Amino acid sequence: MLASSLKVNKMDISPDWVVGFIDGEGCFLIGISRNPATATGYQVLPEFVVARHRRDVQVLYALKRFFRCGVVRPDHSDRYAYRVRDLQGLRKVCDFFLKHPLKTKKRIDFKRFHRILTMIEQGKHMSLDGLLEIIKIGLSIGNQPHLKQVLLEIQQRLRAG
Amino acid sequence: MLASSLKVNKMDISPDWVVGFIDGEGCFLIGISRNPATATGYQVLPEFVVARHRRDVQVLYALKRFFRCGVVRPDHSDRYAYRVRDLQGLRKVCDFFLKHPLKTKKRIDFKRFHRILTMIEQGKHMSLDGLLEIIKIGLSIGNQPHLKQVLLEIQQRLRAG
Repeated sequence: MLASSLKVNKMDISPDWVVGFIDGEGCFLIGISRNPATATGYQVLPEFVVARHRRDVQVLYALKRFFRCGVVRPDHSDRYAYRVRDLQGLRKVCDFFLKHPLKTKKRIDFKRFHRILTMIEQGKHMSLDGLLEIIKIGLSIGNQPHLKQVLLEIQQRLRAG
Repeated sequence: MLASSLKVNKMDISPDWVVGFIDGEGCFLIGISRNPATATGYQVLPEFVVARHRRDVQVLYALKRFFRCGVVRPDHSDRYAYRVRDLQGLRKVCDFFLKHPLKTKKRIDFKRFHRILTMIEQGKHMSLDGLLEIIKIGLSIGNQPHLKQVLLEIQQRLRAG
């Protein structure tokens, strides 16, 4: 009985539906935080996010099952968000969108995001030069003003040697 | 050469992509305007709209080709909108979403919208009673406060006989 109700609640989504929905609703973000434990003093936080009104939380769980990674959590106000932050999960997400390209101009954001993920996988974020390049690419993904301050700080440190 | 360039610019979209994209970005709206030429003095204006930043105007044209109806026009600010307003076009759009159901709770809005379209096709909007029912359903589709005023006016007229 329980298994059957659960089955009813499970939503089937296809690769094309996922591409269409993410073309509309998905965000590829590059966060950065200060972290003295890292070689540069900063930590890069790439993130894939889809946020919806709580009435659509089922769709967010369907995405989680689809990508086999990430978490669904309450977001601000009456919204929930599906978030992928770990590198293994982000690799799965990126591999999917490499195989099934986005149709809107969001695919340009995605390409930049994927370039940053690859640089992190290669360890390039562990040097100030690499981090600077990552932040510059990150700044070109839509409006991420928090990166600007860190960019200035790193440029100053590089100039100071 | 020209034909070949045009072909390059044409975007292929599949039914599943359309469902996913509309789950994120599509709106089913019920407008109403005063029109002394109609039997009731009002005109019901159902509308299917997708609006995007102008950088994605190509996607809107792809939707227009897909549904074989509607128009793409500049919207406010730096946005463009794909709009379907004529009944024949809206019938095509509705028939598509009856066959390929939306996954998000937007399908509830769609069902109400489709019910109104069917009532209009049956001519029910031409009586005050029918119009009242249409407006009540319209009010249940998200936030459409302009319908509220007309609802009150019609209720008053019906009470006055």
